[in-house]
Amino acid sequence: MENTLSVIPLGGVEEIGLNMTVFEYGNDIIVVDAGLMFPEEDMLGVDFVIPDFSYILDNREKVRGIVLTHGHEDHIGALHFLLKEIDVPVYGTPLTLGLVRSKLQEHHLEDSELIPVKPRDVINLGVFSIEFIRVTHSIVDGVGLGIQTPVGLVVHTGDFKLDPTPVDGQLMDFHKFAEYGERGTLLFLSDSTNAEKGGFTFSEKEVRRVFEDIFAKAPGRIIIATFASNIHRIQQAIDVAIMYGRKVIMCGKSIVANAQIALDLGYLNLPQDTWLRLDNLKELKDNEVVVITTGSQGEPMSVLSRIATGEHKIEIKEGDTVILSASMIPGNERSIGRIINHLFRRGADVIYEKVSEVHVSGHASKEELKLMLNLVRPKYFMPIHGEYRHLVYHWKLAKKLGIPKENIFILQNGDVLDITQEGASRNGRINSGRIFIDGKGVGDVEDMVLRDRRRLAHDGIVLILLAIEKPTGNIVSGPDIISRGFVFEDASQEIINDVRELVINTLEDLDKEILIDASLIQAKLRSVLKKYLMNTMGRRPMIMPIIIEV
Amino acid sequence: MENTLSVIPLGGVEEIGLNMTVFEYGNDIIVVDAGLMFPEEDMLGVDFVIPDFSYILDNREKVRGIVLTHGHEDHIGALHFLLKEIDVPVYGTPLTLGLVRSKLQEHHLEDSELIPVKPRDVINLGVFSIEFIRVTHSIVDGVGLGIQTPVGLVVHTGDFKLDPTPVDGQLMDFHKFAEYGERGTLLFLSDSTNAEKGGFTFSEKEVRRVFEDIFAKAPGRIIIATFASNIHRIQQAIDVAIMYGRKVIMCGKSIVANAQIALDLGYLNLPQDTWLRLDNLKELKDNEVVVITTGSQGEPMSVLSRIATGEHKIEIKEGDTVILSASMIPGNERSIGRIINHLFRRGADVIYEKVSEVHVSGHASKEELKLMLNLVRPKYFMPIHGEYRHLVYHWKLAKKLGIPKENIFILQNGDVLDITQEGASRNGRINSGRIFIDGKGVGDVEDMVLRDRRRLAHDGIVLILLAIEKPTGNIVSGPDIISRGFVFEDASQEIINDVRELVINTLEDLDKEILIDASLIQAKLRSVLKKYLMNTMGRRPMIMPIIIEV
Repeated sequence: MENTLSVIPLGGVEEIGLNMTVFEYGNDIIVVDAGLMFPEEDMLGVDFVIPDFSYILDNREKVRGIVLTHGHEDHIGALHFLLKEIDVPVYGTPLTLGLVRSKLQEHHLEDSELIPVKPRDVINLGVFSIEFIRVTHSIVDGVGLGIQTPVGLVVHTGDFKLDPTPVDGQLMDFHKFAEYGERGTLLFLSDSTNAEKGGFTFSEKEVRRVFEDIFAKAPGRIIIATFASNIHRIQQAIDVAIMYGRKVIMCGKSIVANAQIALDLGYLNLPQDTWLRLDNLKELKDNEVVVITTGSQGEPMSVLSRIATGEHKIEIKEGDTVILSASMIPGNERSIGRIINHLFRRGADVIYEKVSEVHVSGHASKEELKLMLNLVRPKYFMPIHGEYRHLVYHWKLAKKLGIPKENIFILQNGDVLDITQEGASRNGRINSGRIFIDGKGVGDVEDMVLRDRRRLAHDGIVLILLAIEKPTGNIVSGPDIISRGFVFEDASQEIINDVRELVINTLEDLDKEILIDASLIQAKLRSVLKKYLMNTMGRRPMIMPIIIEV
Repeated sequence: MENTLSVIPLGGVEEIGLNMTVFEYGNDIIVVDAGLMFPEEDMLGVDFVIPDFSYILDNREKVRGIVLTHGHEDHIGALHFLLKEIDVPVYGTPLTLGLVRSKLQEHHLEDSELIPVKPRDVINLGVFSIEFIRVTHSIVDGVGLGIQTPVGLVVHTGDFKLDPTPVDGQLMDFHKFAEYGERGTLLFLSDSTNAEKGGFTFSEKEVRRVFEDIFAKAPGRIIIATFASNIHRIQQAIDVAIMYGRKVIMCGKSIVANAQIALDLGYLNLPQDTWLRLDNLKELKDNEVVVITTGSQGEPMSVLSRIATGEHKIEIKEGDTVILSASMIPGNERSIGRIINHLFRRGADVIYEKVSEVHVSGHASKEELKLMLNLVRPKYFMPIHGEYRHLVYHWKLAKKLGIPKENIFILQNGDVLDITQEGASRNGRINSGRIFIDGKGVGDVEDMVLRDRRRLAHDGIVLILLAIEKPTGNIVSGPDIISRGFVFEDASQEIINDVRELVINTLEDLDKEILIDASLIQAKLRSVLKKYLMNTMGRRPMIMPIIIEV
């Protein structure tokens, strides 16, 4: 529409993750972030999820650029899928682009145009003029955005917290956000991840104090697991290591890669003689070692997981201290708990979020969110980055601060928010959704496939094999019963025999006419067996009668 | 062994749940608790887990009785499986037995001998003399045990917290625990569930204060979801309902049944005119209603879940307040989160543990655990009820309080702790483990079955159908490719065709000699396809070549 700014979230307003928002005015589109989401527990076998960005492809001639707020996977993880389809410039701060670049190389997209920006830089993309505003977050070099549009100013926080003592000393650019508030902001999009949490989020520096306490007492080796992207956490581990005369060994592909990127770009301060290799481990005394690694979420193939189960070079022994310096992301608690149990069993002391303050969140809590709302004092407000409940709690805060109910918009992915000089309103939906990535496949796993997987996961599969002579309907082979994930066949031969007998009886009762129609036989066997297994065993395996006509 | 007390945990020391401990001396065995465990997320399709109690069956002539500490599923849920195999008296307090009785009736075990006891009662079972000691917990009528054995006194806490203001005014029997401390306790077994948590656990009464605040402000109906067994929580909801002139509607089979049992036994105070039926809902004004129901863990078939998705008589509307008065048990957060999102979307205000103090734990935190250890001051200590990490944290507390390291025993399920006048030591293991219950089946699902289910869940199954003429090796039907949970076949016909072609090519390359041996063909096809699908798609479905010889 003419003179209309359309704001369209393609992801990030129905989930934590999948962040991607389209801003469209006339012939110009900019895209903010292109993130992935890690699968929920009923998305069986799915490696990760990306937003359906077909709307962007359908309007590809309008797209002026992709603007990234920071380098977390939930903001950049879908980028290479998008860049495979569309060739547009990507804007971001150096560390963000550093992380993007290494990812694009993996996918043979090194020719993509990556344009570095610094905080307070302004770029022009079509009618949009975008200013980058420094924010503090659990990754270095994060920015929010001030977007000048023909209908007014838009402010987008990216992910943020108000860290008063950031590790690198680079404060959030309050002055710039205040300036946007002063100039008059039309629309404000703000991070809702922690909108349920009262008070202020602790500063990243608080973790250092805890590290110091642990290091002071640790008799032997120290192993710290954290997110590979949390450069500040890694920096603090390094700083405290140096303070206590320990050397640092990075362990794991992603953490070594990220540390190297951060080091090359000047975001990490790690003296050459402090960073040793895993091979140097045996030359060091136990109290001279800090190992920094990944696997804080209990990922089964991670270094930490392999250490915990004794499948790694580093063998846990009495005196070792393991720190899980990360939150337990919902859904991962049991896997993490299992790793902690294993580490304890092998003699380590294990310290984790539940028993010590070895982690702080990267997202703003209620008081910070209110402060930002008061600073930017927008006309319209759109909470982003959260499940519905997080957005609702953010909505409650905004209402409390005096923003009229009708000026607050909780959108769903694909909803279009239209803003003109006259006002703002929802205006229909565009095509959107989630694409499941399983292995190398994109989008070939859909809801029906997942439904089948859930069914298979629950009670397994029972196959009934039968060969029938075409014209006569005579059974020439079978019935044979094969099952997987159903019962333990060695111990349950009786069940298998019962099923076989039931199949034989069912077939005997069938008219010859039915016996020459495979699909009728299949339907009949399926229904008889389904009922039988439910009644006798209370189970519903997938039942597949396979009839070969010869 | 002669003059030896053997203490054998059959469950509950490697997990939260599955609590069951054997005490054996000479020709006498008593069993404390018989609990189940809810499955972990990789136990696909398993409904629940019970301990392998074959040791009890193997020594059935020695078993003098089963002693129950309280009526939670993780302490009584395996009882009916045990009573099916062995006929021994069961001792417990009235509410515990009330809950047991309704369960036994379901399983046609109403003839079991259930013997009610009260706190401070003493019973004699063989050489054992057992005193019941009142404890406070998140269920009414919980007890710990003081067990006199020929080698000395044993104290078992059951599950407990030190609630200074219990809802029913029945304090924990500190005096009795003190008396055991004074008399000299040989072995102490104590609940470790919250051993990671600092401080004191809040009193159940604290929840009432929060209920009052919420009730004072709620404009419309109030729906409270909690555990059906939490009679005190239900009592508090009733009390506050009466205070605010609201009627109570219980909704859901288990909560109605439990409330009725508690009411009949005098554990619940619910005036007849306050308890209405669901049918009365339409006769009441919105601000006259409190619905108490289950489903606080996001269970898909629960009342709350059906309300949230619009599949229940109670239709959520603006003005409704829903309280999830329960903890989020690890592993359930995402399902619970989904229900909260649905309820918000339908217009309710939703209040849950994360945003308000609508729940307190039923288990003792560190300071309470220390107090109990100091009160009972045992010679030997065995932390129970927890995963390894919880036991370790409890072990740390005991060590801090001066119990020598060598006197603290962290056992695994099946480990035997032998205690004589001379000392205590581990002495081998008995047969133990976990039995998976899936539907009506007991033990027919084993690790191999679960492995198959995990595999099926991850990438589905690909079947290759082939009929071969026996003597010649000629293919008379197929190859046909069928998949489930693999790819969306309608959209991925190409993949299926590629697989089919690969199978044809593989078969053509095979010697005629191999073609008459079905198992050789199967092995060949499996290996070729496995490699192909991994390389092209990054997936590992279960591959089943099915060859029918005709």
